[in-house]
Amino acid sequence: MKNVICCRCVKCGREYAPAPDITTCGCGGILDVIYDYDYIKTKLTRETLRRRDEMTMWRYRELLPIEEATVPRGLRVGMSPLYEAPRIARELGIRALYIKDDGVNPTASLKDRASAMAVTKACEAGYDTIACSSTGNAASSLAGNAAQAGLNTYIFVPSRAPKGKIAQLMMFGAHLTAVDGTYEETFSLSKAAIDKYGWYNRNAAINPYLSEGKKTVAHEILEQLRFQAPDYVAVSVGDGCTVAGVYKGLYDMYMVGLTDKIPRIISVQALGCCPINTAVLSGAPWQPQAENTYADSIAVGVPRNPDKAINAIRDSGGVCVNVTDDEIREAQRYLAKTAGVFGEPAGVTATAGLMKLSRAGRLPEDAVIVSIVTGNGLKDIESAIQAVGEPIHCRNDLSEFEEKFGL
Amino acid sequence: MKNVICCRCVKCGREYAPAPDITTCGCGGILDVIYDYDYIKTKLTRETLRRRDEMTMWRYRELLPIEEATVPRGLRVGMSPLYEAPRIARELGIRALYIKDDGVNPTASLKDRASAMAVTKACEAGYDTIACSSTGNAASSLAGNAAQAGLNTYIFVPSRAPKGKIAQLMMFGAHLTAVDGTYEETFSLSKAAIDKYGWYNRNAAINPYLSEGKKTVAHEILEQLRFQAPDYVAVSVGDGCTVAGVYKGLYDMYMVGLTDKIPRIISVQALGCCPINTAVLSGAPWQPQAENTYADSIAVGVPRNPDKAINAIRDSGGVCVNVTDDEIREAQRYLAKTAGVFGEPAGVTATAGLMKLSRAGRLPEDAVIVSIVTGNGLKDIESAIQAVGEPIHCRNDLSEFEEKFGL
Repeated sequence: MKNVICCRCVKCGREYAPAPDITTCGCGGILDVIYDYDYIKTKLTRETLRRRDEMTMWRYRELLPIEEATVPRGLRVGMSPLYEAPRIARELGIRALYIKDDGVNPTASLKDRASAMAVTKACEAGYDTIACSSTGNAASSLAGNAAQAGLNTYIFVPSRAPKGKIAQLMMFGAHLTAVDGTYEETFSLSKAAIDKYGWYNRNAAINPYLSEGKKTVAHEILEQLRFQAPDYVAVSVGDGCTVAGVYKGLYDMYMVGLTDKIPRIISVQALGCCPINTAVLSGAPWQPQAENTYADSIAVGVPRNPDKAINAIRDSGGVCVNVTDDEIREAQRYLAKTAGVFGEPAGVTATAGLMKLSRAGRLPEDAVIVSIVTGNGLKDIESAIQAVGEPIHCRNDLSEFEEKFGL
Repeated sequence: MKNVICCRCVKCGREYAPAPDITTCGCGGILDVIYDYDYIKTKLTRETLRRRDEMTMWRYRELLPIEEATVPRGLRVGMSPLYEAPRIARELGIRALYIKDDGVNPTASLKDRASAMAVTKACEAGYDTIACSSTGNAASSLAGNAAQAGLNTYIFVPSRAPKGKIAQLMMFGAHLTAVDGTYEETFSLSKAAIDKYGWYNRNAAINPYLSEGKKTVAHEILEQLRFQAPDYVAVSVGDGCTVAGVYKGLYDMYMVGLTDKIPRIISVQALGCCPINTAVLSGAPWQPQAENTYADSIAVGVPRNPDKAINAIRDSGGVCVNVTDDEIREAQRYLAKTAGVFGEPAGVTATAGLMKLSRAGRLPEDAVIVSIVTGNGLKDIESAIQAVGEPIHCRNDLSEFEEKFGL
């Protein structure tokens, strides 16, 4: 890979050759992929992008850690829509708001970007089986992308995982193990099996390539805005991998000269589970927290990627805000009703954060902001039912209908 | 519209000027939009398409019934992926199979194509409110696309409609009426209200523009295949609007000289509800049938668009095949596991038909076939749970795990 210099530990700075199946540093720290931006600059320009037909996350392959000869594997991921939302911008009192709807990815979440990368790297390294432990979007996106690529998957979930998510995983043909025990026990069994059988490990906590896949969401946002970087990018934050990826993508584009500034990150967590924001705001090391939020995809009390996430928020001059579950439900309804984008609870949390900052008078009037929707509302219909209540009932009687709707 | 000659009744042949809010013919027949292909040929060529940046269903606007000055409204619909599926092709014993995954549209079904068209035509005609009666994908796609465009919607569903679909509709801010009564009563109330209040009518049974939106799925397939028309296109068939649209798109591309043949339609219905295939196979007029299938989106015993659908299948030299619910479930698992595409039951019915035809030795060895997946499996998680059964349970014990998976 001419574009990659090394993988560097974010904790101790030790450097490693970028093997396709490299995991964490000897010190336990997660690795960051370091690029040769001077070299990439000569290959990736506005002009080359304009002439490029590839309309997927692989459009930015000079900024991705894959070999020149590698054919990307998995589903067709990325190039999700960026909608301008003028009515919401007016309501928030800002110059412009854009909604990046990553819920229209093939398995309906941003995690497809990481899983397509994992599948591609596993094929590069010659593996035929990938494994992970997760109950959520990471697992289903891995199962779907691996199915398309013809790879086997072993996926470990706690047996309490929602039935719908289990059904989706089984549909994709994953070798699914429902572990009768806690998440810790689930992870422990997956680790024992991965260590013994040597499967490729798709685990955002240890695989440095996953956030490199996720960062393409930021590349796309910047190109969709014709390389005019917005002032802020709002992201919901759980284990920290997504926000770290978003920042990396923004940083990439600045470093190769495609944009002239790095937007500030708005990091939004659930008030009931906000270890990363708490650490950034206090300046103290992060501490585990309880997981008191219904937004399951960001209910992460022990984040897997706290270092990269905290660095990303700080380095961008970021803003932290925590929202209640009711504020998330309100944002879910508001975004669907006003922009036609139906996100899952964690998917709309970034927008909930913007609504809260606006009420507190903390959004500048001239701000241009992008809010990322990380997952589709169809992933969690039960929560949607709770958020909207009951419909109006009516007999086949026009007068009754008119009365009930005040017509 | 320089590209449109008129709207012509498919029953009596009477012609009408293409007003944006025109409905059915005086004789009750549905109208077909008639194009000036000689004119369009001069504007729409492989060269113009190659230079065109628009990557949505509006890419083919010379073939769409909108005014030259109209700015399309609604969500970002279309340009869904076309996956080659070599492993499935081998299994079916054909040369090549392609899967068109229309479940990744913004509200997760092909119906977004019709709803984006409806919203655009309603805006063209100056309406601010659209209405329809439906329980399924048509309603949710209308609600989502109208929300994005800032239009009001009145949607009528029978009160027995699934809670998840009701939640999605309410999320998009539709004025939703749950009618305590049959579907006939629901339709009747909607008709009374639409007639009285003059809302724009998004009803595939009466609005001639909706299948013009749907046909873009066929335009895309042909361009994605570099204008090499496949031998067959397989479609699941319910009320007939989608298959009519698919045929129209294939016909369009042939008439403007972008392809050199019209593929044969493979019309797949559920064995428990197959009035259109029965009519085509018998040559007799269609008769209402019971709705005995779990594939709700195609459980249409009284199809709304039988004439256009029957003509489409016949004119293409089409093939009809009916499949059982078990065959649909099998196709759903097979497609997800082998191609990474998770479709709803009606969404995978076309593929179920191909599997059945293959077993009967009715697919030529050299055939190139496209199968359209019309909706996302996340729309109907309950059915998915029924289709996959229970996962393997295991304690945190490597030996137990190995034993259960035969490792």
